[in-house]
Parts: sequence; structure tokens; C-alpha cells
Amino acid sequence: MAYRIGIFGASGYAGGELVRVVDAHPGMDLVYLGAHSRAGSLLGEIHPHLSGGERSVGSLDPDAAGSLDLVFLALPHGASAEPAMALLERGVRVADLGSDFRLDSPGRYEEAYGGTHPYPEQLGMWPYGIPELYRSAIAGSDRVAVPGCYPTSAILALAPLAEAGLIASSGIIVDAKSGVSGAGRGVKAALMFGAVDEGVVAYNVLTHRHRPEIEQVLGAVAGGPVEVVFTPHLVPMQRGILSTCYAPAAVGADQVSVRNALEAAYADSPLVTVGDGPPTTRWVVGSGRCMLSSHVDERTGTVIVLSAIDNLLKGAASQAVQCANLMLGLGETDGLPTEGWMP
Amino acid sequence: MAYRIGIFGASGYAGGELVRVVDAHPGMDLVYLGAHSRAGSLLGEIHPHLSGGERSVGSLDPDAAGSLDLVFLALPHGASAEPAMALLERGVRVADLGSDFRLDSPGRYEEAYGGTHPYPEQLGMWPYGIPELYRSAIAGSDRVAVPGCYPTSAILALAPLAEAGLIASSGIIVDAKSGVSGAGRGVKAALMFGAVDEGVVAYNVLTHRHRPEIEQVLGAVAGGPVEVVFTPHLVPMQRGILSTCYAPAAVGADQVSVRNALEAAYADSPLVTVGDGPPTTRWVVGSGRCMLSSHVDERTGTVIVLSAIDNLLKGAASQAVQCANLMLGLGETDGLPTEGWMP
Amino acid sequence: MAYRIGIFGASGYAGGELVRVVDAHPGMDLVYLGAHSRAGSLLGEIHPHLSGGERSVGSLDPDAAGSLDLVFLALPHGASAEPAMALLERGVRVADLGSDFRLDSPGRYEEAYGGTHPYPEQLGMWPYGIPELYRSAIAGSDRVAVPGCYPTSAILALAPLAEAGLIASSGIIVDAKSGVSGAGRGVKAALMFGAVDEGVVAYNVLTHRHRPEIEQVLGAVAGGPVEVVFTPHLVPMQRGILSTCYAPAAVGADQVSVRNALEAAYADSPLVTVGDGPPTTRWVVGSGRCMLSSHVDERTGTVIVLSAIDNLLKGAASQAVQCANLMLGLGETDGLPTEGWMP
Amino acid sequence: MAYRIGIFGASGYAGGELVRVVDAHPGMDLVYLGAHSRAGSLLGEIHPHLSGGERSVGSLDPDAAGSLDLVFLALPHGASAEPAMALLERGVRVADLGSDFRLDSPGRYEEAYGGTHPYPEQLGMWPYGIPELYRSAIAGSDRVAVPGCYPTSAILALAPLAEAGLIASSGIIVDAKSGVSGAGRGVKAALMFGAVDEGVVAYNVLTHRHRPEIEQVLGAVAGGPVEVVFTPHLVPMQRGILSTCYAPAAVGADQVSVRNALEAAYADSPLVTVGDGPPTTRWVVGSGRCMLSSHVDERTGTVIVLSAIDNLLKGAASQAVQCANLMLGLGETDGLPTEGWMP
Repeated sequence: MAYRIGIFGASGYAGGELVRVVDAHPGMDLVYLGAHSRAGSLLGEIHPHLSGGERSVGSLDPDAAGSLDLVFLALPHGASAEPAMALLERGVRVADLGSDFRLDSPGRYEEAYGGTHPYPEQLGMWPYGIPELYRSAIAGSDRVAVPGCYPTSAILALAPLAEAGLIASSGIIVDAKSGVSGAGRGVKAALMFGAVDEGVVAYNVLTHRHRPEIEQVLGAVAGGPVEVVFTPHLVPMQRGILSTCYAPAAVGADQVSVRNALEAAYADSPLVTVGDGPPTTRWVVGSGRCMLSSHVDERTGTVIVLSAIDNLLKGAASQAVQCANLMLGLGETDGLPTEGWMP
Repeated sequence: MAYRIGIFGASGYAGGELVRVVDAHPGMDLVYLGAHSRAGSLLGEIHPHLSGGERSVGSLDPDAAGSLDLVFLALPHGASAEPAMALLERGVRVADLGSDFRLDSPGRYEEAYGGTHPYPEQLGMWPYGIPELYRSAIAGSDRVAVPGCYPTSAILALAPLAEAGLIASSGIIVDAKSGVSGAGRGVKAALMFGAVDEGVVAYNVLTHRHRPEIEQVLGAVAGGPVEVVFTPHLVPMQRGILSTCYAPAAVGADQVSVRNALEAAYADSPLVTVGDGPPTTRWVVGSGRCMLSSHVDERTGTVIVLSAIDNLLKGAASQAVQCANLMLGLGETDGLPTEGWMP
Repeated sequence: MAYRIGIFGASGYAGGELVRVVDAHPGMDLVYLGAHSRAGSLLGEIHPHLSGGERSVGSLDPDAAGSLDLVFLALPHGASAEPAMALLERGVRVADLGSDFRLDSPGRYEEAYGGTHPYPEQLGMWPYGIPELYRSAIAGSDRVAVPGCYPTSAILALAPLAEAGLIASSGIIVDAKSGVSGAGRGVKAALMFGAVDEGVVAYNVLTHRHRPEIEQVLGAVAGGPVEVVFTPHLVPMQRGILSTCYAPAAVGADQVSVRNALEAAYADSPLVTVGDGPPTTRWVVGSGRCMLSSHVDERTGTVIVLSAIDNLLKGAASQAVQCANLMLGLGETDGLPTEGWMP
Repeated sequence: MAYRIGIFGASGYAGGELVRVVDAHPGMDLVYLGAHSRAGSLLGEIHPHLSGGERSVGSLDPDAAGSLDLVFLALPHGASAEPAMALLERGVRVADLGSDFRLDSPGRYEEAYGGTHPYPEQLGMWPYGIPELYRSAIAGSDRVAVPGCYPTSAILALAPLAEAGLIASSGIIVDAKSGVSGAGRGVKAALMFGAVDEGVVAYNVLTHRHRPEIEQVLGAVAGGPVEVVFTPHLVPMQRGILSTCYAPAAVGADQVSVRNALEAAYADSPLVTVGDGPPTTRWVVGSGRCMLSSHVDERTGTVIVLSAIDNLLKGAASQAVQCANLMLGLGETDGLPTEGWMP
């Protein structure tokens, strides 16, 4: 018997991917679709590429959703808190792809997003939804804060090294290159084909809201504060993030110890693999996998880890389903896409 | 219990897609991978995006393949005939994605490919692998000639109209726009990023080898010779074919009768849908679907049908698996990808 | 001494290209820039890629523009008529890149655009701005209606054959593939990178407003009505149009006579060349050139002409400057870009 | 009277751009084209996008070239030395776009390229061809080593800060994103459209040959050794490099002092501009300009400079012509493209 699943925020890119992944999941039944501005539409009007286009999309009202085992929230920043709390109150598990519950304290929340959180006591109560790092906490929880695409790629690259003490806690640089879908489905001049195609550009330099999230998790595993400079870039492609992560090498860090630390950390995590050479995002687009490679420059004392994910899958929808599998007692990789699309 | 499946020609783009689709198929077990120049490699060296990269790729020797229920052949033109006959002799079903057995007579074969066929008596004996048209013939056969990507898109657009007498038998134009993967994985100057990106070009004008295949099938359903002008174009994208098909309207052809004919023809075929407006290839890329729209110009007496498919799926791998499902007595759409990738 | 030039509508893509071409023109001085919604901006805020970004952009008021020899109008449909007439009244030559004065009669105008024209007596009075066809009329005029990008590519391909009686006057199909810049700089969901990249789609099937313009000019050179089916497509690239033009062959049309007719027509026109094989749009992007190739199918009696231009240059800005050169008594190709950009 | 110019290596991407730029230069006459493997071809067979396609391409024999004032060498690594010395011996000025004469000592040459240099006494004798840094040395020389595309972008970003002591001499990271044309016109599997489109990947991590060149020039202006980690990436676009340059801030470095240092350094250099926000490569593609922006993170003590150039123009052909202008006593920016292409 399959679990009854809802998706709130089905009209965006991540929402569409959630529909696709859950539709293909043998242990899940997608029984409710909700959206804000597109409530009342048919799914096929919003996502013509999906099958079952005659399914209707309802509101974000928790009561309208009926009896559900778990709801995925794929809503804009700030829009998750209310429906999340309402669903939890009704006994429905919540996997939130938004940023409302990722940070662990009101202070860090204010640093990242400004303002005060409507449920400050919830901050720190939600497991951070990277199963490779927080498997057991996620499995035992009725709520999970699924991380953003940039933090997922950077944290998978650096957390094992921070934990093993192989990198310094400052001087870390995450230079990330993202496909355009990461910017969402909103209609903006800066995201027009004419503006994006055949160009590369950095944005939100030194001000991107995902930086505190990266520092929080790396700090937690390192056992002390970690400083990160994070620079996101927009690359003319639909999907994929490549994070080029630089850190000063700590004592004992060399090519062997760094690679061993990564391999040991992910030995039981089939979706994260460490390769011999730099991964292209092409190899992971379409799958819930993360591919890493490590490179140590003894000349300058620098560790480089390259990390490639599909921003809409391991960086959003499939990671959320991976978390949900754990929350529901299913196999961690059940129903997840494990093979990429190429060409 | 799943059927034992082999793929000969696993190293190309269509071969890689076959691996991906068969891997995900609940009724099929992929037990043998063969390739010509890459025999001896691991799958992961050839297709880093696929999982199970430690699987080894063997030769094209039918005996090496062991006991199999069905083999997919994804080999270059002219390379299918020998392994196909050898496999059939050993009692193995064959779904050939190549062009060796598609044409129905030595004369048409010579027109398209030049030279003589090594097994001329086989021509006309292989059901043409478009299940929407030849479902029962495919279901009863141990051999199927899976059509090329261009013919699939053009025939799905025009065959119902040719059969219903709604279009003339000459003056038909198929103007097709294909992604670059249709040209295969071979390394050529004309397929370099520097040559292809940001440009569109026609090629093989009036000489493309798929034209006789289109005329053969349209002629068969029309009950008489059909003349087609076929112009393929290369568009700077990985996947997808859009065929813009023009035909002089016959008596009785108007927007209603044309659309009705298409809808009636595909009423029992869930993978072909007729929409209200022009389909973009984006809506079908990643799935085994074909999307059509029809437009009738009463001013000039012209019928236009637009047809969008993923050239590597409905135009190759997933159509082959759709045929194999019928050959093996499985459900026609079992295990097929039915939801596209977007963005 | 250089002529004093103004550009009305400097903020769009065609306007930006006009600035670039006129800036590089040794016989022209760009002394006035006007725009509607961006009036009051600096050029560099609108077009960061242009030099002289400190130039200010004014209004579309003819009096504000001061003393000018010629103004280019690159305004939306319907917005040219008033400023054009006001400028002409002040003795300023006008090269209108818009569609207001291209059609030759109120009837055809209504067919294409609906409604009535504010200056119906002007229709038919403006030379049609393809210098290769109407060189002397343009040279003697103070007003020119510069054609759209699609008509330019189709007419250059077909007019010599229509004039020579080598093609029929009906059954003509123009299947055009355009880069996205042809759709303009307006912010629309359908033009987002996420919607356009990696896909091809037809639009305005049977209803595009440029079709009557093509029929008008082909009819004029043929000496009788000509019927055209025109299907535009959007291709994921910034610039370039490839028009694949099909026509039933008339008596006497074969590969030699068709090619000879094209070569003879453009013998004195250095910007139009007839090549041996299909042109890619890449070869003309960046230049004011048009590349043609011709292909005759004796089997089906079909003439195909392929025509490649840069939609923003030969399809807009550089053709306008080519016309202006004639209007001002300069050399026809003075200051025009004649070398493309590749890769 | 124009100078007589030759291009050796006209068949590659940089060679084609040299032809385009020199053709448009009012003070230069392109009188000789030479190539290695394509000797004997017509220019139009090699570069169909250029005009004057009937020009013939000869050999790389200095004597065949006849009387010339200056030759541009756009040859593969290692192929410049012989023709350069032969031309200089004949009194012909040489602007070498290759890497043979860029490094200042046999030791650094061996570090970068391995092996020994055929003319070690020449190392250090060739001015490094960034006019913004070495204007007077270039002006007085008959030989100039034009830098590579990556070093140009990184050095323009960092040299003023290194010189002003605003950044540390180690811990510097240059994370560069390049269009595919930077990899040249050679036919390779890794550069096929199917491999490159829709993906981003790092390459030559820690081993790229341009790193010593960057360290050499930054060290020279800093007055002591400088250590750089350089990571190039391939981005799915034709042209453009964005270098994201990170350096630990030195005492006194803040947003104001860093920006002032950049602006002061380029106050007399019209082709380098410092903007308020991150530049996209789109704004410089097609021109010989470099656009910079600076960002200082006081929290972590990090200086970031973003640097955008067209790799084939400021990173190759137009910078070479800029140097040649100085060598020939012409105006530094004479004939250079100063306006970009967009969209």
C-alpha cells in the first residue's frame, strides 16, 4: 500500500519535478496538488510535459488536502511556515523545500533573511535534509528542512573534510555555477533567453542568502565556527550546479587523505560518488546523484573539491523524496532517479 | 519473472538510452551489453551518467551473449543484418533500431542506401515498429524493424490523414528540425560545439535516406504511391524533433475533419496526443510521447500537422522498448518514460 | 562631412544594432537617440555592450531631435506613422523599420493588421526597402519602408524565381526558423531561457502578420497574385533566420536555370551570394549579408531555396542603413558590416 | 598609407578574428595569409563567414610572405619560435599570439611547458602584450608576446591591486569560466556539441599552463613572488571569459581603496572599465573591452574582482592588434572593435 502524498507549490520548477518523481515512485501515491496563483488550473496547463495533465490543482488550504501521510512544500521563501505548522498540527508529515526552517537560530535567520521568524521556537528543531549527513535524525522526524541547491552541493563537498579537520575553518571559497532553472520560473528581464544565452555572470556577490546555511552546517560538523565566501554564477544551461570549493589545507591534508575522507564519508551513500577527474554537470543532470572529485595543491596548500548535482533533483525534488523515504520508513533510494540524461 | 534482455550497440546515444529505459523497466532484466569498438570497456567509462557503471561491455558475438529473450540492435546502417539473423536463428527475438530491415523491397532499399541487401528475402518480412500503426503485426512477430526518428515523427503526423484520404498523395513536404543527438556520437567537425551552437542549417537536402521510408509507409496506408519532399535541419539543442508537415488538402479536409481523423487514429494510443496549439519539443523530450497539432488553411488548401518527439526515445529507444513490450506480451507502455523533462 | 542621423526607438534590439552600425559608419554622425519608455536614460543603462554609454536618450518628439538629415524609426507596430509624418513634414528623411508603411493598400493593411491606417494615402507611396530589388526607387525617395526580417529572407530567395516565371504562383511554402531576438526585447514568459532553450516550436501558424508582405512583393515581381503559406519557428539561438522556401517548379525550372536566375539577379549586389551548399545562419550572423542555395527536385517538381540572414542586420538595422546610404547618395554598402561572427 | 600586414595561422578561431579585425582597420592592409595544414585553400573555404573569400592562403614560409611591416602569429604552442625569429631577422615586426615568448626565464618556461626553449636567450626580451600595463615597452619593440585569454582577464583584474599592495601575495584564487572557442578549432570528442551543451565542467585543475604566466606578471608588478591557484572551466557558450578572482585583503583594502586602485590604473585605458555591479560576458563579447567590478568582504577579509573579456578579442586578436598599433606608431585603439554584440 502506497503512502498518500501531497505537493503544495506544484506550479514551479521544483514542484513539477516533485510531481514527476512522486508519480514514478512505487511507494507513493500523489493524491493532492496545491498551488497559490495557479489554484484552479489543470496540471497539464501548468506543466505540459507531465502526464496526467487532467489532474486538477487546488489551493494551499491544509483542510482541502484531505487525509495525507506527507506533504512536500515547494513554496517561496516565507510562505512555508504557516502551512507547515498547520499540517503538522493535523498529524501530516512535512518535507519543506523552502528556506523557512533550515536555520538553527533566530540570529542566523535574521542574518540571512532579515526580519523575525513567525515560529522562532521551531528554529533548530527541523533536521537538515541531507540524508548523507543526517540520516537518522531525518528518519525519526515528522518534519525536515530540505536544503537549497547551492548548500547541498557545497556541503556534500566540504563537510567530510571539515569534520575530519583536513581544512581550515576560514579562507573557504565556494564558487558555484548554476543552470538557469535555479532562479525559478518567475518572469524577469534578467532571465530572458536574450539576456542569459551565451553569457556567464556572477550575482548576489557576497550577499547570497544561502551562505549562512552553508556556514551553519559546516560549522556544526567541524565543531566550531566556519567562514565561507560564496559566489553564485548563472551559466547558460537549464539545470545543474557545479560548485568549485577551495579551502586552505590543514595539517595532514594531502591527495590521499582528502580523497579517503570523502570516500569514507559516503561509503554507505550510493547517491554520492567520488571520481578520479572533474565531473561535468551533464553526468548528474536527471538523477539524484552527486559527483565529487578532490584535488590537493601541495604547492599552495589548497584543497579543491568539485561537486556536481542537478539543482532540481539532488538540489530539490529528489533530495526531498529521499528524505521522505526515510521519514516514511521506505528504502532511502526507493523510487529515486539514479540515471542521468545525456546527451 | 523478468525477461532477459541484451543490447548490441550500447556505446552510442541510442544505446545509452536503451540501457536507461531497460534498467528502469520492471519486466526486463538487462543481462548483456555489447558494443563494437568499445567492447572490453566498463559501462561507466562510456556513459558516466548511467548507474551500474561497473557493468562490462562485451562483443557483438551472438554466442557470447548467452541465453536471451530479446536483443535490441542499435548499430550503424548495414551492421544489423548479420547479428540479427544469427540471433533469430538461435531463437532470440530482435528489435532492430537500425535501417537494415525497414524497407519492403530490394528496389526501395537500393534507392535509399545503394547496393544490394545481404538478405533480400527478409525485406517486407519485418513489421515496421510504430505500434500505433502496426500493433498486432508487432505483437505476433519475433523481429521488428524500429523506424528512424524522422520517419516516426512524420508518419505519426500524416498517416491517419493519408489513410482517410484527407490529403493529396503528392506535394507533401516534411520540414524537420532535429536536435544534434540525432547525428550520433561520432566525432566530426560539423558537430563541434563551435560549429553547431547558435546556428541552424539544412543538410542532405533532397538526398536524406529516410525519405523512402516515409513514402513507403504513407503509401501503404494510402493504398497507392505517395511523394514526399523531406528536408532535415540541425538545430542547436541536444534532443527533440519537430516535423512541420505540409500537404495539399483533399476534398473534405477542414480543421474539424483533420483533427478528428488524428484523434480517432490515436484514441487507443496513450503516447500520441493531439493538442490545441503547436507543441514545443520541450514538452516531449525525456518521454516516449508524440505531440501533434493540426492546422488547415482553407485559403490555400493546405493541411499542416506539427509533430514533436524525442528523437532518442519515441524516435529510437523507447519506441523499441514499446515494440518489445508487444513482442514479449507485456503491456504496451510498461516501463516507458511518460513524463518529460522540463526545464 | 557626415550626415546627421537620429534613431527613434533606440532601446530595443534593432535600435541597439542601429546604434552600433551607425557608430561605425564613416559617413554618418549619430546625433540623436530617442526612445519611448526609456527616455531620460543613459545609453549605457539600456545597452551596456555599446560604447559611448554616457550618451543620453531623449524622447520621440521630432522637435526635440533638432536638425537631422535622416531618422531611423525602430518602433513597435503602429507607432511609426505619427513621428514619420512629422519628420517628413520638417524635411527629414525617414527609414522606418516598422510595419506601418510596408503594405501597398488599405485592404492588404487591414488583412495583415486589422483596423484602418491613419494615413491611407501613404500606402503604396513608400519604396519597399530591399535595395537588391528596389535600388533606384529607394535612392530617389525621402521615405523608405524597411521590410521585416522574415520577408527579407523569403523575398530574396524567391523574388528572382517568381520574376523569371520559374515557380508556380501558388503552393509556395516558406518554413522559417528564427533566433529568439526576432521576438524582441519585451519580457514574456514564452521568451524565458527556461522556456526557449533546448526546444523548437512553431508559432502564429497560418496567422503571422508578415505573410501578406511576402505575397505583396512576390506578386509585384511575378505580375500577378501569389499565394504563400508561411510558418515561423523559434529556435534556441540569439540571432539568425533560415528560411526554407518550397515552390512547385514551373516549366523550364531545373537546377541550372534556377541557380542562374538567382545569380543573375544578384550579380550587382555584393551582399547576396549564392552558394553550392546549404548555408548555416552562423555564416551571416554579424554581417549584412544574405546567403542562398538552390535545390531542384525533378522527381517531385519542387524548387527549394534556402536563405540565411542575420535577422537584426540584413533583417533590420544594416538593411535600414543600406537603404539610408542610397537615400543620402552614399555608397550602398558604405559602413555596413560585411564579415560575420564565428564562432 | 596603410601598413602591410601578414597573418600566420589564419585557419583557427583566433586567426579568423585577426582577419576580421585587420580587414576593418583603416591603417592596416592585410596582404598575406598563411596557414599550416590549410595552406593552398581559399579563405572562404576555411572561414565562410568572412568576406573576401577568394583570397588564397599560403604557407608559413617567411620568404613567401614578401615585404611586410608586421606579422601576427596565431600558431599552436611551440610553433611560433622558428617563424618569429626568421621574420625578425628579415626586419619584420612580430606580434606572437602563441605562448612561446611569454615567459621570462627558462625555468618558468620549463615549469609551464616542460622541455627546453629553442631560443632561451629570447625569454624575458619580449614585452608582455597587455598595453594597459606595458604600453611604452610595447611601443618601442619590434616583438611582442601577446598573452593568453585567461592571463589577460586575471591580470587586468589583479595587477593594480598587487601593485598597490592591497592584496596578499598568496591565497589568490582565479576561478575562470570560458566559452568553448577558447579550446580552439581542433576536432575532439570533448568539444562536441553533445558533450558540451547544457553542462559545465572544470578542466586541467591545478595543471593549466597559463598559471605560471599569471604568477609571473603579478609577481613583477608586486615586486615579489605571487602564488595563484587557477581553475579553468568550460561553459556552454561560444565566447567570453569571466574570471572570478579572490585574494586575501591586505591592510588598508576596503571597497573604496580597491575600486580606486582599479580606476586609477585604467584611467587612461579606454578599453578597461570598472563598473558598479558584476559584468556579464555578454557585454564584452564582440569588443576589445574588459569590464571589471570589485567587491570587498570585510567579514572574511576577502577581495573579489570580476573580470569579463571576449577570449578571442581582448584575449587574443584585438589585443594583438592593440599591441601592433603601438608597435607601428598608430593610435592604440585605432580600428579596434569597441562595441559588443548583444543579443
